[in-house]
Amino acid sequence: MQYIDGGICAPKGFKAGAAMAGIKHADKYDVAVIVSEVDAAVAGVFTTNVIKAAPVLYSKKIVEAGVARAVVVNSGNANACNGERGMRDCLAMAGSTSKALGIEQNLVAVASTGVIGAPMPVGKLLQGIDLAAADLSLDGGHLTALAMMTTDTVPKEVAMKFSLGGKTVRIGGVAKGSGMIHPNMGTMLSFITTDAAIDQVLLQAALREVVENTFNMVTVDGDTSTNDTLLVLANGLSGNAKITEDGPDYRAFKRALGQVCMDLAQMIARDGEGATKFLEIEVGGTRSLEDARRAAKAIASSNLVKTAFYGEDANWGRIICALGYSGVDFNPDLVDIYLGELPVAKAGTGLEFSEEKAKEILSPKDIKVTVELNQGEFRATAWSCDLSHEYVTINGSYRT
Amino acid sequence: MQYIDGGICAPKGFKAGAAMAGIKHADKYDVAVIVSEVDAAVAGVFTTNVIKAAPVLYSKKIVEAGVARAVVVNSGNANACNGERGMRDCLAMAGSTSKALGIEQNLVAVASTGVIGAPMPVGKLLQGIDLAAADLSLDGGHLTALAMMTTDTVPKEVAMKFSLGGKTVRIGGVAKGSGMIHPNMGTMLSFITTDAAIDQVLLQAALREVVENTFNMVTVDGDTSTNDTLLVLANGLSGNAKITEDGPDYRAFKRALGQVCMDLAQMIARDGEGATKFLEIEVGGTRSLEDARRAAKAIASSNLVKTAFYGEDANWGRIICALGYSGVDFNPDLVDIYLGELPVAKAGTGLEFSEEKAKEILSPKDIKVTVELNQGEFRATAWSCDLSHEYVTINGSYRT
Repeated sequence: MQYIDGGICAPKGFKAGAAMAGIKHADKYDVAVIVSEVDAAVAGVFTTNVIKAAPVLYSKKIVEAGVARAVVVNSGNANACNGERGMRDCLAMAGSTSKALGIEQNLVAVASTGVIGAPMPVGKLLQGIDLAAADLSLDGGHLTALAMMTTDTVPKEVAMKFSLGGKTVRIGGVAKGSGMIHPNMGTMLSFITTDAAIDQVLLQAALREVVENTFNMVTVDGDTSTNDTLLVLANGLSGNAKITEDGPDYRAFKRALGQVCMDLAQMIARDGEGATKFLEIEVGGTRSLEDARRAAKAIASSNLVKTAFYGEDANWGRIICALGYSGVDFNPDLVDIYLGELPVAKAGTGLEFSEEKAKEILSPKDIKVTVELNQGEFRATAWSCDLSHEYVTINGSYRT
Repeated sequence: MQYIDGGICAPKGFKAGAAMAGIKHADKYDVAVIVSEVDAAVAGVFTTNVIKAAPVLYSKKIVEAGVARAVVVNSGNANACNGERGMRDCLAMAGSTSKALGIEQNLVAVASTGVIGAPMPVGKLLQGIDLAAADLSLDGGHLTALAMMTTDTVPKEVAMKFSLGGKTVRIGGVAKGSGMIHPNMGTMLSFITTDAAIDQVLLQAALREVVENTFNMVTVDGDTSTNDTLLVLANGLSGNAKITEDGPDYRAFKRALGQVCMDLAQMIARDGEGATKFLEIEVGGTRSLEDARRAAKAIASSNLVKTAFYGEDANWGRIICALGYSGVDFNPDLVDIYLGELPVAKAGTGLEFSEEKAKEILSPKDIKVTVELNQGEFRATAWSCDLSHEYVTINGSYRT
């Protein structure tokens, strides 16, 4: 596997375009269209929130049918909790995209992110879709990354190439955060394109599997959005022998998909709202994988852990406390905790450690925490960011 | 029922004393002793965290035995994660109190709150216990409230009297927050005294029942502490006919106990760390009581809901989103939301409302949110506070 440029337009046959529709801001990209030259197998995962935005309900059906040619996405308005009007506006988005691109409407997936419960300014949006569709190019991947941003401070994209049976295959992805969880649940959105040829059922299976270790292990503020959407389009234009079963090709594809998801997921945590620190929390020695994931996520989600790292405070008591209420059963007397390489607790009890050394570990932006339960063979890692004054500022005044 | 002065020393036969042991600060009360003239039935509930501080493990055994005469409490150090030394120090606290008061050691309950994983400065503490025990008085209830404070900004106490079979019975309580959940898990601690005569098994049953609607419905930051402890001592000195079965006297006692717990729980939310708002979240129309409690707590715990109220932002989308990920199953199209008396969403869809009226409702310190699911007959209320810049300041620099 090798990193390449081009984001979602790196794979053969994908172009994208973006426009400023004036939903988010007069001079910011806020609508984008991603399109494949040919029909692509499409897989997707969506929010588990009972409240689902109209575009989530709509795009789920596209994924069930399994084929897509385009994705249309806007930021600035989530199109959630808008009643029947929400679905009408969502269909209008798909309809406009379909007309502008000259493809069938049921091949267009839709995603939105932004304020919940505000009617979509649909006139502006449809004009924006026409502009974006008229401006498709290989550079459109980067513009799409810009158009998806809400409180994100940096666009998030990645691409790589790898080999499948002698053919070069490309995979690219774009995402927005600034958390799985977002201001107004502005949402985690991500789109991945690839020119691999792969059966839709296997594509969906690969996606479900890699999501568990990547996007589902990122947390910013613990609020699961109404709009979370992750779509993968595979158009087969690389010419590889179509992957139709579990085997070396499937596993190679899954590794590449996993890497793209991992990179995007970490970018989201790193750019979490108000983040000054990127936290990697690894929990090992648990009795099951589920236990390791649950423990790592509980620590990564704790407001008290997150504020301690904001303050560069080696407050390991908050880490063991979060572990204790995570719902994982364990023997407290076997727990070891490390900040970076520095042991701060052994067998459930505090160690004397150099505050100076701790300060050296906690001053950089990237902080690694390792917790060893010493009670089993399983491990998992979660990614998060600190909880800063800026997070409160952003979220205390997002809507108005 | 009628409110009276005196806090935990209002009931007959209870005295308390406090001292400055220098654990928290040279010139702050940080240790207190509460004592009953005669043996009291004791009931208790404790943290569900797997990591339990030494005083929690110790006091659980006192509650199992069912009889106590005294409670000794300190702030500034949680005595959690201190290995074998933690239990030795806890036993030393009980031993010193027992000697100073001339009562058996197994009648002394112990509680601690403060930093996790720092060894207890036991020399200072034992001196403080001697001073506190030498200074017992009817005014000691208020000093106890002061001695329990960590990041609390106000002491928390209440007392009331009521009638049982013609006898006047008194009940008083003291608590510290500033949340069920605390900086360094400094902990929710609360002690309630009463001169009611009641069987220990019924006392424990009443406590378990009222806690579900009161202390367990308060959240500040979602972190469940290693030290949470709530104890009730009933010494029987009011002379009421001992309550030995479920009946009018038991229910009257439970009502009074419930009111004391409710008042203290609300004081904790109101004084949550950095709080500028007191939030009351009522959820009605659910299919079960469990659903109502779960939904109310999810909304009350959401960082995004809490920051929105800090910003006085009528952002009901965050409320319905938290409801959606609460784990409660419901039909989104039946949900109504009110801020104060102002309807902001009806049948799952936003209503147009006056931002001016919303501002009037969101400007005062106390804010009421009502969510109607219209799918059943159950209701529950949770109490919380907003998430402010000050919360981040307090928790970014607690230990150092």
